[in-house]
Formats: sequence, C-alpha cells, structure tokens
Amino acid sequence: MNTKQNILFLFALVAIVLTVFSCKKESADDTNKKNETSVANQQHPKLILTAQGVKDIRAQLGTIPIFDQSLQAVKEEVDAEIEAGIDVPIPKDYSGGYTHVRHKKNWFILQKAGLLYQILDDEKYAKYVKDMLMEYEALYKTLPLHPKTRSYARGKLFWQCLNDSNWLVYVSQAYDCIYNYLTEEERNKLETNLFKPFANHISVDSPQFYQRVHNHSTWGNAAVGMIGLVMDDEELINRALYGIKDLKLDANKKDDDGGFLNKDGKAGFLANIEEPFSPDGYYSEGPYYQRYAMYPFLVFAEGLHNVKPELKIFEYKEGVLLKSINALLNLSDADGDFFPLNDGQKGMSYYTNALVTAVDVSYHFGNQDPGLLSIAKQQDKVLLDDSGLAVALGIKNGKEKPFSKKSINLSDGPEGKQGGVGILRNENLELVFKYAAQGSSHGHYDKLSYSLYEKGEEVIQDYGLSRFVNIEQKGGGNYLKENKTWAKQTIAHNTITQNETSHFTGKYDIGSLYHSDLNYFSSENENVQVASAIEKNAYPGTTMLRTMAIIKDEDFEKPYMLDIMKVTSATANQYDFPFYYFGQVLQTNFKYNSPKTLKPLGSKNGYQHLYVEGSGEAAEGNTKFSWFNNNKFYSLTTLTSVQDELLFARIGANDPDFNLRRDPALILRAKNSKNRTFVSVIEAHGSYSPVSESAINSNSSIKSIKTVLDTQAYTAIEITSLNGNVKLFITANANNSKQKKHNLLINDKNYEWSGSYYYK
Amino acid sequence: MNTKQNILFLFALVAIVLTVFSCKKESADDTNKKNETSVANQQHPKLILTAQGVKDIRAQLGTIPIFDQSLQAVKEEVDAEIEAGIDVPIPKDYSGGYTHVRHKKNWFILQKAGLLYQILDDEKYAKYVKDMLMEYEALYKTLPLHPKTRSYARGKLFWQCLNDSNWLVYVSQAYDCIYNYLTEEERNKLETNLFKPFANHISVDSPQFYQRVHNHSTWGNAAVGMIGLVMDDEELINRALYGIKDLKLDANKKDDDGGFLNKDGKAGFLANIEEPFSPDGYYSEGPYYQRYAMYPFLVFAEGLHNVKPELKIFEYKEGVLLKSINALLNLSDADGDFFPLNDGQKGMSYYTNALVTAVDVSYHFGNQDPGLLSIAKQQDKVLLDDSGLAVALGIKNGKEKPFSKKSINLSDGPEGKQGGVGILRNENLELVFKYAAQGSSHGHYDKLSYSLYEKGEEVIQDYGLSRFVNIEQKGGGNYLKENKTWAKQTIAHNTITQNETSHFTGKYDIGSLYHSDLNYFSSENENVQVASAIEKNAYPGTTMLRTMAIIKDEDFEKPYMLDIMKVTSATANQYDFPFYYFGQVLQTNFKYNSPKTLKPLGSKNGYQHLYVEGSGEAAEGNTKFSWFNNNKFYSLTTLTSVQDELLFARIGANDPDFNLRRDPALILRAKNSKNRTFVSVIEAHGSYSPVSESAINSNSSIKSIKTVLDTQAYTAIEITSLNGNVKLFITANANNSKQKKHNLLINDKNYEWSGSYYYK
Repeated sequence: MNTKQNILFLFALVAIVLTVFSCKKESADDTNKKNETSVANQQHPKLILTAQGVKDIRAQLGTIPIFDQSLQAVKEEVDAEIEAGIDVPIPKDYSGGYTHVRHKKNWFILQKAGLLYQILDDEKYAKYVKDMLMEYEALYKTLPLHPKTRSYARGKLFWQCLNDSNWLVYVSQAYDCIYNYLTEEERNKLETNLFKPFANHISVDSPQFYQRVHNHSTWGNAAVGMIGLVMDDEELINRALYGIKDLKLDANKKDDDGGFLNKDGKAGFLANIEEPFSPDGYYSEGPYYQRYAMYPFLVFAEGLHNVKPELKIFEYKEGVLLKSINALLNLSDADGDFFPLNDGQKGMSYYTNALVTAVDVSYHFGNQDPGLLSIAKQQDKVLLDDSGLAVALGIKNGKEKPFSKKSINLSDGPEGKQGGVGILRNENLELVFKYAAQGSSHGHYDKLSYSLYEKGEEVIQDYGLSRFVNIEQKGGGNYLKENKTWAKQTIAHNTITQNETSHFTGKYDIGSLYHSDLNYFSSENENVQVASAIEKNAYPGTTMLRTMAIIKDEDFEKPYMLDIMKVTSATANQYDFPFYYFGQVLQTNFKYNSPKTLKPLGSKNGYQHLYVEGSGEAAEGNTKFSWFNNNKFYSLTTLTSVQDELLFARIGANDPDFNLRRDPALILRAKNSKNRTFVSVIEAHGSYSPVSESAINSNSSIKSIKTVLDTQAYTAIEITSLNGNVKLFITANANNSKQKKHNLLINDKNYEWSGSYYYK
Repeated sequence: MNTKQNILFLFALVAIVLTVFSCKKESADDTNKKNETSVANQQHPKLILTAQGVKDIRAQLGTIPIFDQSLQAVKEEVDAEIEAGIDVPIPKDYSGGYTHVRHKKNWFILQKAGLLYQILDDEKYAKYVKDMLMEYEALYKTLPLHPKTRSYARGKLFWQCLNDSNWLVYVSQAYDCIYNYLTEEERNKLETNLFKPFANHISVDSPQFYQRVHNHSTWGNAAVGMIGLVMDDEELINRALYGIKDLKLDANKKDDDGGFLNKDGKAGFLANIEEPFSPDGYYSEGPYYQRYAMYPFLVFAEGLHNVKPELKIFEYKEGVLLKSINALLNLSDADGDFFPLNDGQKGMSYYTNALVTAVDVSYHFGNQDPGLLSIAKQQDKVLLDDSGLAVALGIKNGKEKPFSKKSINLSDGPEGKQGGVGILRNENLELVFKYAAQGSSHGHYDKLSYSLYEKGEEVIQDYGLSRFVNIEQKGGGNYLKENKTWAKQTIAHNTITQNETSHFTGKYDIGSLYHSDLNYFSSENENVQVASAIEKNAYPGTTMLRTMAIIKDEDFEKPYMLDIMKVTSATANQYDFPFYYFGQVLQTNFKYNSPKTLKPLGSKNGYQHLYVEGSGEAAEGNTKFSWFNNNKFYSLTTLTSVQDELLFARIGANDPDFNLRRDPALILRAKNSKNRTFVSVIEAHGSYSPVSESAINSNSSIKSIKTVLDTQAYTAIEITSLNGNVKLFITANANNSKQKKHNLLINDKNYEWSGSYYYK
C-alpha cells in the first residue's frame, strides 16, 4: 500500500473499531470488570503485557494508529495460521530446514496469539495456544536430543539449546496470557511435562550452554527466568538470576566458536548484564550480537520489573540496559544498518523486531526520549503491550523529534576500561574506529581497524562475517569455515598485519587477555572530529598508535578522512596496510604489473584467500589511487616511498564453495621496517549521472600530504590542497588531556595550542 | 524538496506569476501585439518554439504546474550562469576536460536563454545570447582544427565534429529566438563568420562524418538543416535533407569504430530516417544510440514541420519517427532504464533529456497518447515550447493514464526484414531476445542472445559496453579497447560461441551482410509468451534455432524462463553456452575442481578476459545451479550429460587497467558435438530478509526437465515440477504460422493443436 492507501486504510480501520466498540460497549465493560477481579486474584497476565496494560489498551483501541495497525497485522498473521492448522513436527533439521522453521514460526505465533487473546478478548486465540501447547506437551516428553549433532549444546526441539531457549522466551509469554484460561489440571500437565523439563534441559542438563557469560546464556537465563516468573517458581527465577547453584565449570573448556566456556565462573542473568556491557552500554560482542541478545535482556527485564519490582532491574548497573539501547542505535549507519563489527551480518538494522522491542521498552521504561518516537515511526510498528501503547500514544500526541546520531565514543569492558569504539560523524560521512577488547568468541582480530561510510553506503568496508544466516544451502545457514580462515583474520580488516600473522597470532586465549586503549577522543569542534587509540599487545614488541579524524575544510567539497597510523617496533617487520574499497579502479599515479595468472597472496592467516591482481612500486612521496562506486568518486592519498609495494588484491582464493564475496582491496606493503608512520587521506567527492552522463568533481582536491614532524610526543601532517592552501594537523601522541597546553617548534615556527590536537 | 514542499512551492509560484501578470497585463498585451506584427513579417521564432506557441505559453503561464516548474528550474540555471559570466575558452580537451565541458554547457545555456527571452520577454536573456554568440564569432574565425587528434573527423570547438554538430543543433535554436532582437548587421556578422563556416566545416569539410547513414551524420544533418532553416538558406537545407550534392565517398573506408563510412552512397537526413529505422521504429544501433540520435531526429523534424510543413516530415516512412519513440520506451526495463543492447551504457533511461523531448514531441505531434503523460509526469519536466505546453495542459487536465509495457516484437532493418528484438513480459519478469541485424558499427556479435530482468534488476545480464562515458580518467571517457576485445565478442553474451570464435569471426564486414530471422512470436496467451528465431550465418554450416518463453504456471511462485537452443551442424564442434548471473553461488548438483591459480579461459576472442574459477563434469540428465542476489533466489536447470563440462568463470583477466567489471558466469561447454539442443529453465523464486533473517522459498520448484522429442519439425520438452505435475511444451521448428494445425505422436500419445507452440 502506498501512503495514501495507508491513510485511507487507517481511517477505515479506526471507523470500524469505533463502531465495534460503541456497539459492544456494554459487554466490553462487563468483560473488563470480570477480568479486573480475576487479575487481582491470580495476577495474569503479569509478565510483559500486564492486566492494567490490557485495560488501557482496550480503552484506546481504534484511536492509536500505529498500534491499531500493528494489531491488525498481527491479527491477520495469526488468523491465517489458525486457518492453516497446527503443525508440531518431530525435530529433524538444521536452521533453514522445515522442522526448524516450523518450530520457530510456532513460537512467534504462540506469543502473538496470547496477546490477541488478551487484547481482543476472543477465546479462539486462547484455545489455539492451549491446543498447540498440548501438542508440544505430548511431543516433548518423547523427545531424545535433537538428531543433528553439530552443536556443543544440543537442544530437543532444535539442533542447539540456543533455539530451544528462544522458544521458551516467547512461549512463556503465551502461557502467561492464557494462564487464567486454563484449568489447574491443564496447567499442571503443561508445567510438569513441558515447561519444567524444558527449563531443566537448557539449564542444569546443558551447563556448558547455560552457565556462562555469553549471549547464548542470556537467552537461556531469560527463558528459565520468564517461565519461572509465570509459574511463580522461585528456584527457576533464582537459577535465572544467579546461575545454576553450586556449579563450577572447567575454566579452560571452549565452545565451538573457540570461546571459553566459563573462564571466571560467573553465570546468570545479572552476571550477563554485569560483564558484557560497558558503562556506556557497549556490548562486548558488537552490535549484531547485541541486537540478538537485546530481546532476552529487555523482555526478561520487563518481566522482572513487572513481577519483582523490588529488584529495580532497569536501574541495575546505573541503568545500563537502557543505556545500551542508545549505544546500539548509535552503532548504526544512516540507513539504520548496524556496523558489522566482529561477527555481524550486513543488512541487519534497527528495523528488526528486537529493536522494536528495544525502542518501545526504552521509551516506556526510560525517560520518554522523543527521538525514539521517530525511530518507532520508521519501524512502523509497536509492541502489543504496555510499552507499545506508550509509544503509540506518544506518536499520536505529536511528541516525536528526529533521532540525531552524533559522534560518540563508547567504552568497552565491564568497567569501561577495555578500549572502545569511536564513531566520528560529519555531514554524510561516518567513520567507525574500533579499539575495543576481543569481543568474546565472536570477536575478530582487528585491533585499531576502521570502516568508512557515506550516507549509509560503505566506502571502506569491514567484511563482516562469513555466513548466510538461515540460508540452508550455505552450510545449513551456520558459520562457514571461511569465517575463521578469512573473516576473523587481521588481513581481512583495515588495519596493520605484521609479518603476515594476525593479531595475537589469531589466538583467542591471547586476544582475550588484552584490549587497546584510548589515547583521546575529541568531538567538541564540529569541523574536526578525532579519535586516537593505542595497541601494545597485538604484536609483542610492536606498538600501534592510530589517530583518525574526519575534517571539514573549506578547500574540500565534503569532509575528508585523515588517518595517522604510527607503528613503532623493536625489530624490522613487514607491515601490510589494506584499503577495502568498492567498485572500479579509476586512476593510479604508480606503475604496476598485472600477472598473467592469479595466485594467492599467501598460504595462511587469511592471505590464502586473497588473489594478487597487480603489484607495483609505490610512488615517491604520495601514492594516489582513485576509484568509482555507485556513481560517486573517491580518492586515496597516502605517504609512501619507492621502497613500498602496492598490491591489488581480490578476495576469493581457496574458496571452492564460493562462500566469499569477490571484493577488492589495495594493500600498501612496507617491508623491512621498524618504525613507520602511515598517513592517508581518503576523500569522497563528486558524482556521476548515467542519465545526463556528466561527471562532476571527479578529481582529488589534494596536492600533497607530508609528515613535517614525527616524534614520540607529536606527529604533524601538512596537507596542501589543489588550490595551494596549506593546513597543519598535529596530534599529541601522549600527554593529551583536553586542558594540556602544548608548545612546539616545527621548521622554525612555533605552534601553541591546548587540547589533544592542532588543526589550522 | 519533498512532495509537500513542492506543492507549497508551486502554489507560491502560481500566486506570484498571477500577480505579476495581473499587474503587467496592459504592457504584456502591448508586447504581444508588437510581437505579432513583427512575427508576421519576419517569422521568428519559427523553428521549435513558434510565435503562436509563445503567445499560448504566455497566456497559460502560472496555471500549468509542470511547465511553470520546468521554467523556474531553467530560469534559475540560466540566471546563475549569467551571474557567473560568459566563458568561451580556446578549445583544448577531450570529453570530460574543462574546455569540452564548458563549450557543452554553453550550448545548453544559449538554447535555454533564447527560450527565456521569448517566454519571459526579458531582454537580458537576448543580450546574454548575443554577447556569447559574438564571443564565439570572434573565436571561431581564428580556430584551426581541434588540437586533439583521436577522431576520424575532428571538430573545431570540440575534438570531434560530432560535438561541434551538437553545439550547432542547440545554438541554432538560440539564434532563432533572438533573431529579431539582432540588427541585420549583427546577423550578417554571425552568419558570415560563425554559422556558415561552422556548417561547412561539419559537412563539406568533413564528408567522412557528414555523408553517411550513422547517428553522427544525423547530428550533422540536423545541425546544418536547423541553422539553414533559421537563416532561410535553401542550400544548407537541401544539404541537410539530401547530403552533400554530387559527393560519393569510397565505399570501403571505415571509421574508428570499424563501421563502413558509406557503403551504399546514401546520405542526408531523409536517408538517415530511411535506413536505420525499421517500420516498427526499432533503430538499428539499439536503444542507447537511438536515445542519443533521437534528439536531432526530432528537433530537426519539428523545425521542418514548422517551417516546411509541405514536407510532412512526421508522416515520412509511415510516421516512423513517432513510432520509434514508442519502440524506444518499450526498450526499457521496469525502472525506465534502456536495455544495453549493442554498445549501451547501463543506467541510461527515459529520464534523460532527449526522452523529455521524445515524449513531448510524440504527444504533441502524434495522437496525444495519454500513457505518455504518465511518463512525462515521472520525468517531472517538459520542454519550454509548444509541445511542452501541450503535455503540461494534458497533465493539468488529468488526461494521463499508465504507460503499460507489454510483450512486443520489434522488427529490424529498413523494411523490417532483418530480424528484430522480441521482448517478453510477465509480471515482474522481462526477457529481451535479440535476433537483429549487425546494428551498424556499435553492434555486438551476439546473435540470438538474451538478457533477463526482474523488476528492473538484471538476473542474466548483457554486459553492455566497455566505456565510462565522460569520465576522463578512463580513457578520456571514450570507448576502451576492451570494448572490442571483450564487450563486442560473442562469449561476452548469453548465446552460443562455437569453437571459441565469435560470430562472423568477429568481422564487421561479414556480420553486416546477415541477420537472424524470426521463426515466430506469440504473445496472445498472457501465461505463455514465446519468441523463436533462427540464425544460419554466424557460423557457416551451423544453424541455431532458439525458442525462448516466459511461462506463468500455477506450480511455480513466479513466471519462469524456458530456453530451447537447437544447434545443428555439419561438423563436430565445441559449443560454449554461458549464463551471466550475478551474486553468490548457493548450490550445484555437480562436482567441480577449484584451481589453485586462476588462468584465462583462452587467448583471444574475449576468452582471454575470462578467468576459470572452477571446472567440472556436468550431471547426467539435469544440471542444477542456484544463486543468490539482492536478497532473491534464482535457479537454473539445464539438460546435460556427463560428457558436458561446466566452467565457473569471472571477467577480468588480461585487464591491466581494471576496465572490466569482475562479474561471474557459469559456462556450459559441449565438446565434439554436431547437433545439440540446449534446454534450460531459469526460475526466480523466494526472498531473503537480512532484517528478519528468514529465507522464503529458497529452492527450485523443478524436479526435472527432459527432451521427449527433437526433430527438424518439432522439439518437445517435458517439465516436471516438485509437486509431481508434468507439463509439455512443444515448439514448431518450422511451418509455424498461427493458423497452422499440428498433429504429433509422442510416446504413443497424440497431440493436436493449432499455432506455433503447444503448452499444457
């Protein structure tokens, strides 16, 4: 439907609902009264939707467009499923296969049907939920472990406990909604044969899954806790909050992603909030997994807030759960797509249902940030519960304001002391600079890596993961082996690889011990936004200090990126410094040879996946490289000497199943170097129209860049634009507090400033 | 501006214009009277904008939104240029360089300023045109040939006569608009020193450019003719219509594209209409060049219609000029992008200015097809002349209807007897089947090739040209050498390459002698659309008969493509049959080896540009291959035996300047075969959402395909869908008139039908 049709449809819907309500007023009131009594006695629903929420929603129905529309969509979906009939197949498949998809669909439909029963007060939905739950009861008690064996913790309905937990998180909400509709006998049957053994299987029977600090465990904890809240089972609730009592796992065991199972013995929902979130709300595994973990975090927190308000869960760790939603929204590009840090599938965005939950919950339980309403409006749906109602009313009452993403620095680590992620934004450019900790088992070996976006399009990409989530033809939809051999390796990222070996020699145990550290972050000056961080452990004996800036300067059409990567080492090394650009090569100022046959760049650590499409000697002074993508022009200017090598590379070698994208890179290789300061400028400029066939501003605006000073304390870069104007950028490599006064002599000229950097 | 702002802006504009007119009514009327008299005497403007048109436009101004808005945009553009000042630099650069871009801009601004003078009756525009023309007069008389030497016909303002002609086509309109503003002395000066020598340089001084049937010459003819019409110079007008008098060129000479300069001695505007257009309006070089040539065809025709109505130019060759616009609009995909047949740059669409002219002219001088109004509305602008006024009034009066593109067969050749192009459309699928003649110097060696689109996205691509038009960094924006070595070669297309040699051994002289022939085209049945054509000359001794269908069948989610390529040969050959898909390989049912190093597939005829990324033995019976692109799934099922080879290929070998896109192909190779009937089905199916991470209908719906009969007279294919339903498609390989009754025994069962094909 287009906008106009949507509006007409809404008018029609409102009209219908109003009519229905005016006709049924008396009987609806009666129902409400009846419910009030029963709710007061038996306290259901209470978990997410509350008895009071049901009352309020019913009172507003038909007058809250985005809610009415969400309700209508859910109703259509559930009605179609009821029409199609219940199917609870015997478990058989991996992700993407029929039984997996069916059980997954069932959990969503059960939860939605439960909501419909409460909101629409129509017994057909309760009966549907009951009937399906009884089928699950009959099936579950007969089930052995799932027949597929790939997981470190097999479920019963699904091949992994993780998905079993997903199921229970949703189904406990459905159970809560029809709790009072069931007889005590029916409830006993379900609890004894289905819910309790189900909760036990994913917890006490699968401690390697449950007893951890990991997004998997968060799902497990929430599942056990939520069914515990509904069943009023204190043992399960405590197991959810604090982990399995008196159980310690072997601290050295690992899961199939290579992550430690439980290194420090922490477990339970509270530990899972404590550990992975930094005080700024950054989630250690990155936004893709935060988005995935967000739902159980928030929905169980809602349940706790409603049933156990004395826990003050939303204030836990200084309100980090709600802070994390703000962090997550800021970890998205102009289109709302999350930056694919660590293992992250591109295209995942704040349009996903978990973020509808996040935005609605954040609005309702937080401080009613009007910016969230604009995102809710883009999402075009709300939760069918108390928080969704709050958002719908906010939008209806015109309270929304734009959600403006600015430059932001997000610390990593439980106490915010393990590096972080800095995002620099100016006009349409976004730079994501990662100087975080390892990021758990989904982390990549990408210290001080970055990616660059223009208006939501990737300019310099982060590869993301190697996986086609839920596409069965590609390895059952699971992680592909290239995720380890390519996507996690350092050479797959826009940072330094030393001697063709990944950071921490690609070893998770070592990587987990360390993190990069912030040098400084400065976003006060709108025109010069800078993030600077240092990494001392990725290569023992080598220090990397990277300072990245997005600078808006009148000599340039758009803001440009300045990158100073200062490498200091005790030994002579080879440094590979890639630029993962996209599109078509336009021009180079260096000569290169094109090989007749394409060979891999190396044999391991990701190098085996890169073909060499060209190699040449860098230019003396400045190497220039320009390219063309999506009808826009880009130019790289980077400091080189003729000793440096340039390699045109393309991903795809040793990839017999075509699991990798054939994306290109330009790699700057410095051989036999101890100390080296890489300095690069990337400009986005101009445009091309294939309709008018005109190219606008297709050339770089930079005449030259030059390092005029490079000491332990300072690095100074001179940037000369084509029109002859000369600018100087000086970064303080240490001692760089914002108040600090600097005084520096360069080429007989004295520079004085206070703060971390100088630009003029 | 968004829609809302646009509407507000238009209201404001209308209000202002109305106010201005009511205030100035008296004086405006006076001006009109004055003009009427002078127009009656001196007959200017008369070429495109007419004196009567000016009157009508002035009367409607402020009440015709799309016209008012176009006028406002042109006014802002021209005012900004007047503000910036005149620049007429000494010619120096190739396309994309400063002097080229500046002179090009000047021609547009001159033409627009002329229109503004007439419509707004403001002398500042006339003065601006006069001043710039005088600068051109001063410069032109000093100019030698353009310093860049690459063209076979160098211009003076530009590196090629073609661009000089572009200039004159536009500037003659500007001159017409200010003709009466100039003194006779001024006119004499311009005509003597600028326009006449200019017209002579591009015609009598450059006969290799002018005296041909070619889009270049069309521009030349129009340029000479239009300035002739303005100057009332019969000699120039006749030279435009009929070519240079008494001049015959060497019939064997070629231009730099390899096209014959003038094989049969024909020349002039009328010959250029006669030759390249088929009676259906298909232009022999294809839509990209038709779009380019369209402007001079139509604008000179308009001039002739206005000044020499006795020629009845729009009725010439049964009204082919207007028919050709309809053909061109039908040669675009769902987004309005032209199919890149022959040399065509992707992304060129009916949003280009030449098509604004085409649509407006077609509406005004044709039969006011209301479908054209909907395209004009999408274009969101109209010409500032009589035809633009007609369109604006049509839209204002709500006459528009959707322009619906249906399946269409367009004959090629001056008499429609040289093959053609068939387009099959059903729902979102579009199949473009090319069985045309060589297509002049911009033709490719691609007999019986096709491309497939879904909703404007390429599923099976035609590579298009190898050129980055007007992007100076890529070979000056001109054709790259890979256009000959790759883009024109047969292996670059979705058709048969025999023995690794292109059709007609890639020789233009041979290719130009032949064309494919239609077997039949049938689009009466909405669910089964078929095009069938035969090629007997591409490989002497080998005949290719290809029958392509788009079939909508209830066993399939979307329409599917059926392709029967029947090759018959006197000798044993190798046949290569590529599928230029896009995106990621999902699954194959055959085994293949992945080479450790990538080598070119061959050494010439385009094969040198393909890397082999994998090779294997085909499956016995049906080879299946599925892929994933833009979140949609595609499957190929093709008849093979284990003697067949399958090659994964990728474009990009021997491409040191990275001029080619690294796109993939799957190539089916049949070795040592005399007769071979390739049968393939391509399905588009399902979808994937990276936000919900759910894959829908990701598998092929085909169980098997089988040839059950294959004779000289008939080929019969049995298609069994996954749910077990069996359908039979029989195509008549000869004797296939629509009335013809067929009676055929297959496996003891009798099939009777009338028409070209059977499907049930």
